[in-house]
Amino acid sequence: MSLNPSTAAAAAACDPARRPLADRYAAVRERSMALAAPLSPEDQCIQSMPDASPTKWHLAHTSWFFEAVVLQPHAAGYRPFDERFFFLFNSYYESLGPRHPRPQRGLLTRPGLDEVHRYRAHVDAAIAQLIERAGAELWATLQPLMELGLQHEQQHQELILTDILHALSCNPLLPAAQPQAAAPLHLAESVPALGWLELAEGAVEIGHAGADFAFDNETPRHRVWLQPCRIADRLVTCGEYAEFIADGGYRQPGLWLSDGWAQVQAQGWQHPVYWLAPDDPRAPAPHWQVYGLHGVRPLDPAAPVAQLSFYEAAAYAQWAGARLPTEAEWEAASALPGMRQATGHVWQWTRSSYDPYPGFQPWSGAVAEYNGKFMVGQLVLRGGSVATPPGHARATYRNFFPPAARWQFTGLRLARDAAC
Amino acid sequence: MSLNPSTAAAAAACDPARRPLADRYAAVRERSMALAAPLSPEDQCIQSMPDASPTKWHLAHTSWFFEAVVLQPHAAGYRPFDERFFFLFNSYYESLGPRHPRPQRGLLTRPGLDEVHRYRAHVDAAIAQLIERAGAELWATLQPLMELGLQHEQQHQELILTDILHALSCNPLLPAAQPQAAAPLHLAESVPALGWLELAEGAVEIGHAGADFAFDNETPRHRVWLQPCRIADRLVTCGEYAEFIADGGYRQPGLWLSDGWAQVQAQGWQHPVYWLAPDDPRAPAPHWQVYGLHGVRPLDPAAPVAQLSFYEAAAYAQWAGARLPTEAEWEAASALPGMRQATGHVWQWTRSSYDPYPGFQPWSGAVAEYNGKFMVGQLVLRGGSVATPPGHARATYRNFFPPAARWQFTGLRLARDAAC
Amino acid sequence: MSLNPSTAAAAAACDPARRPLADRYAAVRERSMALAAPLSPEDQCIQSMPDASPTKWHLAHTSWFFEAVVLQPHAAGYRPFDERFFFLFNSYYESLGPRHPRPQRGLLTRPGLDEVHRYRAHVDAAIAQLIERAGAELWATLQPLMELGLQHEQQHQELILTDILHALSCNPLLPAAQPQAAAPLHLAESVPALGWLELAEGAVEIGHAGADFAFDNETPRHRVWLQPCRIADRLVTCGEYAEFIADGGYRQPGLWLSDGWAQVQAQGWQHPVYWLAPDDPRAPAPHWQVYGLHGVRPLDPAAPVAQLSFYEAAAYAQWAGARLPTEAEWEAASALPGMRQATGHVWQWTRSSYDPYPGFQPWSGAVAEYNGKFMVGQLVLRGGSVATPPGHARATYRNFFPPAARWQFTGLRLARDAAC
Amino acid sequence: MSLNPSTAAAAAACDPARRPLADRYAAVRERSMALAAPLSPEDQCIQSMPDASPTKWHLAHTSWFFEAVVLQPHAAGYRPFDERFFFLFNSYYESLGPRHPRPQRGLLTRPGLDEVHRYRAHVDAAIAQLIERAGAELWATLQPLMELGLQHEQQHQELILTDILHALSCNPLLPAAQPQAAAPLHLAESVPALGWLELAEGAVEIGHAGADFAFDNETPRHRVWLQPCRIADRLVTCGEYAEFIADGGYRQPGLWLSDGWAQVQAQGWQHPVYWLAPDDPRAPAPHWQVYGLHGVRPLDPAAPVAQLSFYEAAAYAQWAGARLPTEAEWEAASALPGMRQATGHVWQWTRSSYDPYPGFQPWSGAVAEYNGKFMVGQLVLRGGSVATPPGHARATYRNFFPPAARWQFTGLRLARDAAC
Repeated sequence: MSLNPSTAAAAAACDPARRPLADRYAAVRERSMALAAPLSPEDQCIQSMPDASPTKWHLAHTSWFFEAVVLQPHAAGYRPFDERFFFLFNSYYESLGPRHPRPQRGLLTRPGLDEVHRYRAHVDAAIAQLIERAGAELWATLQPLMELGLQHEQQHQELILTDILHALSCNPLLPAAQPQAAAPLHLAESVPALGWLELAEGAVEIGHAGADFAFDNETPRHRVWLQPCRIADRLVTCGEYAEFIADGGYRQPGLWLSDGWAQVQAQGWQHPVYWLAPDDPRAPAPHWQVYGLHGVRPLDPAAPVAQLSFYEAAAYAQWAGARLPTEAEWEAASALPGMRQATGHVWQWTRSSYDPYPGFQPWSGAVAEYNGKFMVGQLVLRGGSVATPPGHARATYRNFFPPAARWQFTGLRLARDAAC
Repeated sequence: MSLNPSTAAAAAACDPARRPLADRYAAVRERSMALAAPLSPEDQCIQSMPDASPTKWHLAHTSWFFEAVVLQPHAAGYRPFDERFFFLFNSYYESLGPRHPRPQRGLLTRPGLDEVHRYRAHVDAAIAQLIERAGAELWATLQPLMELGLQHEQQHQELILTDILHALSCNPLLPAAQPQAAAPLHLAESVPALGWLELAEGAVEIGHAGADFAFDNETPRHRVWLQPCRIADRLVTCGEYAEFIADGGYRQPGLWLSDGWAQVQAQGWQHPVYWLAPDDPRAPAPHWQVYGLHGVRPLDPAAPVAQLSFYEAAAYAQWAGARLPTEAEWEAASALPGMRQATGHVWQWTRSSYDPYPGFQPWSGAVAEYNGKFMVGQLVLRGGSVATPPGHARATYRNFFPPAARWQFTGLRLARDAAC
Repeated sequence: MSLNPSTAAAAAACDPARRPLADRYAAVRERSMALAAPLSPEDQCIQSMPDASPTKWHLAHTSWFFEAVVLQPHAAGYRPFDERFFFLFNSYYESLGPRHPRPQRGLLTRPGLDEVHRYRAHVDAAIAQLIERAGAELWATLQPLMELGLQHEQQHQELILTDILHALSCNPLLPAAQPQAAAPLHLAESVPALGWLELAEGAVEIGHAGADFAFDNETPRHRVWLQPCRIADRLVTCGEYAEFIADGGYRQPGLWLSDGWAQVQAQGWQHPVYWLAPDDPRAPAPHWQVYGLHGVRPLDPAAPVAQLSFYEAAAYAQWAGARLPTEAEWEAASALPGMRQATGHVWQWTRSSYDPYPGFQPWSGAVAEYNGKFMVGQLVLRGGSVATPPGHARATYRNFFPPAARWQFTGLRLARDAAC
Repeated sequence: MSLNPSTAAAAAACDPARRPLADRYAAVRERSMALAAPLSPEDQCIQSMPDASPTKWHLAHTSWFFEAVVLQPHAAGYRPFDERFFFLFNSYYESLGPRHPRPQRGLLTRPGLDEVHRYRAHVDAAIAQLIERAGAELWATLQPLMELGLQHEQQHQELILTDILHALSCNPLLPAAQPQAAAPLHLAESVPALGWLELAEGAVEIGHAGADFAFDNETPRHRVWLQPCRIADRLVTCGEYAEFIADGGYRQPGLWLSDGWAQVQAQGWQHPVYWLAPDDPRAPAPHWQVYGLHGVRPLDPAAPVAQLSFYEAAAYAQWAGARLPTEAEWEAASALPGMRQATGHVWQWTRSSYDPYPGFQPWSGAVAEYNGKFMVGQLVLRGGSVATPPGHARATYRNFFPPAARWQFTGLRLARDAAC
């Protein structure tokens, strides 16, 4: 599928040294469209909670990012598709001007989906032209910004999936968001036996260094001191989590952090948010089922448990006589030979709050707001999920969400102190 | 435009004595579709506040009403289009089973608009068949229920317009809901001079009697005692209301009811909700403008002021040294020769709470819930608006809304005690 | 008990023609103190919800009223006890300046109770002096204002009781507010047989006329047209209400107004708010109990049911195949020979919204805010309760509360259309 | 002052080896009473927000703690003062049964203050008896629990001061909580010049080890790797913070964390919560003033700034071109010779989230809930404040509050990366 023929054409036309980035640009942009393709214009318009955004908004916002960060500052004579989109599709960049309130993104029926497609094509054409015509000095400036724009769009590709899944989960018909999706969106597999990987005491280095792309929050690479511990070589499965439920895990306050227990009581949590208990009126069945991108399916005991909040992950670990790993432990363990399911299934909650690394400096300019200003009240997740675009994640990647968030592909891996 | 060819065909085929109702059914149903036609599927899906519903929901709910009240109980062998729609599209009928929560109507991207159109066609076909085939006794039973279904749909036709207007008013682009709409949706006209109609003291009869259709809340016709008073022969205009604003009307607590003043302060009210002050960033202009079905237009001083809450209407009347008429005064005055703008412009707030008439009895069966259970906390409006379907309103009609409601075509007419 | 010796002394000293008012002033003021006397300083300080006020606040506010309405405008050279009290103890008079937010009245530990007692004494002394020294013309002006101040204080005497009862009902120990209170606060009596009083169709006059004191909202006296109906000659009892509960009254939406049913569900209403079901952990017993001014007592089947919301009263009437009387019906019936329990037990919800009477004019000046600005969203109650000061109520009295209010001595009397 | 003569007597009578603990018990308990002594029963009863508790509640809860942890499990034949107090005065111990809802603590006018005093005396007498009579084995068990009870009471002594200060700050009269308080509650001093202390890169040990009392959250002592940095040798002053305000600190989103900026906008923050701008109507003055335990006083430029949220502390540090220290940096620096104002002025926000130390194990039994279950969503503070009881704090102490908390004696000390 290609709504952007000019993109491919431009890529073909340009300097061979710039071809890889042009090709990559085209591929990433087209992947966003492909993710949205199975959804109706109505599906792509709605917003089911303030934390989630409409598909259409994601398609527009990622284009706005290229406009605001690449085209407006660097493409001489660039004419915006519509000046008003600067207000509509800015997400949270205070330095880039006022913006439409986040909880009201779902009310933007206009611009319609077709117009947003034209907006994307307009930006794509301008980017293609810029790649083709930029002088050498400008090209040097542009490369990292283009790369950031693409990484940014890949992050929103994951959100397109998790947000639409949440939106459709609010419909009592429980429709499937990706009915035809095949293996790439498949979570289940045969259940692996559990092994423990050992980490010895001592200083290790974590964080990103080098020329490859990484977000600012992964830097600087620095030394941390690890205590001896063991870390599970695979994820916790739905079957294991079902035992926790059956053992009354959601009824024992002693297993929960105080804030977590408050949520359990206030929200009536009894199981992961997308699980359907045997008597669920929306899709009656004599057994547990799980709602996901393919719709409602019987619970697969071998599949990693997903859509867990940090509170649920921590309560499970407590029940299992274990704990969550710290992000440093996770990163150190990720290099060990036996580490399985590190990425491609679910993001893994760590026991580390999302604090800045020692020596952390945000990027400069508008993108200073990209990561640093969110470094409070959130927990770090590591790994990568079935919804993460291929090639996007890496071992130093620091994903983060508030502890009550339940709409992402988030699960857990256990850890234990060496002495336990 | 006709998406329901079978309807017209059936009408043509049926007993000539049943033709008028069949024709009327087809006309009313097609009018709903026509009102929705200028709107995109996205427009028709969203819900901008719990009190407003998506266009698509109105299209489906009015069909559900025919299913629940006519077809299910009376059409032998009727097969519902989709059993699950009984849950999705019930509005507030407790006796007809559980229902989808009102504030989440905007999350129903499925069924899509096309499917709702098929749902309507399915219901239309079944109704057509029922009209054609019902025996004489059943036909006698059906007629009033069919008529109620059509009156009900006409009420929702007004809400289709007011709800989409509210939804689009939340979009900073302020798009027009009915850009091509001509005279029927036109409010403004040359400003009429104001006259006062006199009502003498004494007993008068109000309320509905007779065989024509009326809602249960308009009955029984009964005697009330009027005090002598005068009532304005036309509505309050935007130009007059602008004087109230210019005189500090929104800053003087002494003009307001206590609950109204609380709203003014809590919500920051400074003018009618669809008015744009001269410096409004959404559509900058050196003068007042008004947002309406045709989009943003310069304020027309001769047009009746609309989208007023009861609180604003009452404060204006206080400022003008007058008061709002009671509903009995309004109804008595409506028969006087000089009464202008009684209907077709805006519903007119009265100073009468929506209490039951003496001797009021709700309809029996499921439709007992139609009007009676809302008789507390609301105010009566009389007349009819530019958005009211032609022929739907009458002098005894009792419309009602809570005093803070600001998204209807609601304005006011002044009254005064005789002595004043 | 007298904390105000100067008051009595002044009364003795003054013009004999002014003695009755001076005596009445002393008696009303001392009654407020007597009502508060059994309560600790802590009891008198707290506020259990925004709609209820602390006892101490009532003691101070009623003094502020005399300051603001009588002393400040009319007592030459009056020196306020503390200028800041104008801000602290104004209730809702916008025209008299800014004021302490209502929901934070319970945070006013200072001034302490002793200081509020001194404030009362200061006002009492100034009033006594004014009574003694005012010239004839001023005296003519003062008399109605003094009377209003006393009527106002009597209204707050009822609130002192209902508000402290609510506050103490929030304490799981359920302490008694008036443990020594004898007959005047006793509600129960032997159950009277129920009779029906008939009202014929025709015009009757309701409302206040004449020189005696009445609030502005009771005027003008005017004609209304009554439909023929019957009205119960006594109140609904706790025993009768218990049958409604036992019959599932709180589980049948068809009995309730829509807003009422929403409350039932949102708040989990299952019985009157001060009733304790047999298994209540706060005071376990094998039978129903009722919390009241004397603490927890076994339910008395003969006592009028109290602390009902309008929604509960209306649902009970619906269940009983009856309805609530209108306020005009109530007032007309109150003059009939057989009318029992008209006052002294509970205020009786009517089916009349609190709208202005035809020709209603609020008082002028600051006290224009006394009643008129609350005439929306409330229901009229008639009669008078066990907590109403003796002599305060009358047949034309219009009490009013929002339909969900459950902390007053409010119950019901049934009515029926003549035909039923 | 001593309301507990039996305590002192018992201390005198007991085994000399047990005297130090008995004396310490008496001293700590009496200090709580002394802190409350200047407050009226009304002051001691109210609760100004869910996070703050009434003084009387603190007095009772600290006694409940001795009952629940020491007397009930270990004092044979102990008879509780009132069984119902187990429900009323449990704070958050799920394993010790249900409890009165936290936001309603201010409604407990009963038990009255006198009764709470008797409750304290009852517990004191039982503790004295237990100290005197416990066998050697029991004594070994009791000692750490007694110590915990005293440390717990000392924590509440600080809260008695901060909570009453908040409560009285809600009173527009702004009364002084501790009008006679002398030096111990004095914050201001001459402004010290600022110096920077250097910390070298390398592994250091932090956390508590050894036999002295420490909370479980301070353990185990463990190694962490520090990056080279500098840390200020004194606190940020009010004078310095006033420059931040004057420079528009509260109007520049770029200085704030995202959640902090949301608070600034939603709550209208313009300065520290207890600062009064020059035009404050509660205490008009031509200059800044600060409300504190002594009431309203002119801003002292040399005094450490207090009652700051973490958000404000972090924004100030950003503005100052610095950052907040981590808790490891703070603890390492606290041992350096030049470190001033480490304790006794304000708790100092660190840039460390309140995560568990590696190898952390909560205490066992009921007190497992003491610290561990709060380890999410909060930030660590180090040091100790003017309101901290003498001898209570230590260098390894980990205080913690949510980032928006503004009612504690909380300020900041700056840090910088070595390279900056």
